[in-house]
Amino acid sequence: MPEKNHVDIVVAGTVAYDTIENLHGKREHVLGGSATYFAFASRLFASVGLIAVVGEDFSPEDETKLRNAGIDLSGLQKIPGKTFAWHGRYSDDLAEAYTIATHLNVLEKFEPQVPDTYQNAQILFLANLDPRHQLTVLESFHKRPRLVVADTMNFWIEHAPDDLKKVLQQIDILIINEGEARLLSGEHNIVRASRNIRKMGDFVLVIKRGGYGAILFRDDEIFALPSYPLEEVIDTTGAGDSFAGGMLGSLSYEPTRWRKALIMGNLVASFTVEEFSIEKLAAINYFNVIERYHVYRDIVRLDDY
Amino acid sequence: MPEKNHVDIVVAGTVAYDTIENLHGKREHVLGGSATYFAFASRLFASVGLIAVVGEDFSPEDETKLRNAGIDLSGLQKIPGKTFAWHGRYSDDLAEAYTIATHLNVLEKFEPQVPDTYQNAQILFLANLDPRHQLTVLESFHKRPRLVVADTMNFWIEHAPDDLKKVLQQIDILIINEGEARLLSGEHNIVRASRNIRKMGDFVLVIKRGGYGAILFRDDEIFALPSYPLEEVIDTTGAGDSFAGGMLGSLSYEPTRWRKALIMGNLVASFTVEEFSIEKLAAINYFNVIERYHVYRDIVRLDDY
Repeated sequence: MPEKNHVDIVVAGTVAYDTIENLHGKREHVLGGSATYFAFASRLFASVGLIAVVGEDFSPEDETKLRNAGIDLSGLQKIPGKTFAWHGRYSDDLAEAYTIATHLNVLEKFEPQVPDTYQNAQILFLANLDPRHQLTVLESFHKRPRLVVADTMNFWIEHAPDDLKKVLQQIDILIINEGEARLLSGEHNIVRASRNIRKMGDFVLVIKRGGYGAILFRDDEIFALPSYPLEEVIDTTGAGDSFAGGMLGSLSYEPTRWRKALIMGNLVASFTVEEFSIEKLAAINYFNVIERYHVYRDIVRLDDY
Repeated sequence: MPEKNHVDIVVAGTVAYDTIENLHGKREHVLGGSATYFAFASRLFASVGLIAVVGEDFSPEDETKLRNAGIDLSGLQKIPGKTFAWHGRYSDDLAEAYTIATHLNVLEKFEPQVPDTYQNAQILFLANLDPRHQLTVLESFHKRPRLVVADTMNFWIEHAPDDLKKVLQQIDILIINEGEARLLSGEHNIVRASRNIRKMGDFVLVIKRGGYGAILFRDDEIFALPSYPLEEVIDTTGAGDSFAGGMLGSLSYEPTRWRKALIMGNLVASFTVEEFSIEKLAAINYFNVIERYHVYRDIVRLDDY
């Protein structure tokens, strides 16, 4: 699916069909996946291309959704078989997802390839994938992108620690959640966990705390921020990838503003969780984020007057 | 135990002997209780008097600890019997306490009385107690203090809802934790919970989020703040009462600086949890808090430069 323009940001990850059950209801076979959420989030700030695989069942409507959002699909392979599918049920506080079924489908045959138009991207996000795939993608760039960023999950921490360590030695930013940070470090305390993890490479560490915000560890700097207080949280699927998308989108055009980038990640994720799937995320634009940014600044400012 | 000077802040609550078990070890029969923690925290900012009851077993050493911290003990009754005792075991993340034993002891015969030297206090904190005791204390003031503040807990929300409602109709600030807010409101979402709870009276609402900071709801204002990132959390007992003590201590001399008050509550609690019992809290002074305040401001400031 070739496109012409160069992209600023590339994400390698999954495009999935999700079935989500939670206290607000059930949605079957809805568009999901780490690359999808990341791309819908980062496209608010920059041009983004995705590297992922789908099966023959991937619907033209969903492809149109991605394309209409301005997402470059040159790196989206369609191969025989069915699209990766995940079925999860959430705890009533929406903080924990229990997997009912995972069908890897075409993901088992995924051979990530980097299209020429992605070669000059300044930012590469290696979303949660087999670390070997993350390495393949990175090695397929003729010139290393300015920022190489990775996510991972408990499964790889436990089952592919050596490959994961190779990834960690090659990245500039690691974005993971609290549970992953604890598992990876063997430390419950987040400050001590951060110290252990940062010894595994030379990267900035961002730890996501679900509905409680995030925390940045960069050189000697720590930046902690609370989440945007929402009245309605419908579905937390994709919040982490949306956070990464908003954060890296913001960094792509304001490369030195790390704190602002975390705030933007935080805010973009706050939109994602207000609807199932990418419904809300697909419906907003940059100005909606900026509007919320001003409200947020007022909510978290330290001084009373 | 009469004292001469007038006090700025009065706390009515418990003085207890705690036995604490957690992953860091076990401490038996250590000084605890809501009034104790609150008083040790608020005395960093203002003069504080305590209304509580102890038994004949209450040790002169512990009385000296309180007195040496400058806490006024005119309202501390010593009556026949043993001091209220609590035995708890914490989950390994120190977020949840499981009660192994509660011995009410002298608390069953507690008849709170307000000494004359407390009558002109500007702030009254009704710590977690039977709501009827909270009402008795409040009604014993000839002149209503400028700020009447209450805490409560799940037990009273479930077993004394009518008495609790009377308390809520007479206070200026309610300081509770997330779990209590959810139980009291019947809402999981904190923003919606706050709305329900604020209909129960005309008060400012502060919701504490353990290691994740706190959130203030006041008129149309929302203020959210993350906690101070600690490397070592030893014992979370008393963190909530220390938060209230730091917050109200700060409000006692800067009455319009609500945000600063929450930050101070947050920071004082961050010291409390660094040791068992009141060990750390008793060892610090106002300048230690201010020092941490400057570090904290740097950690949470929004702008990169």
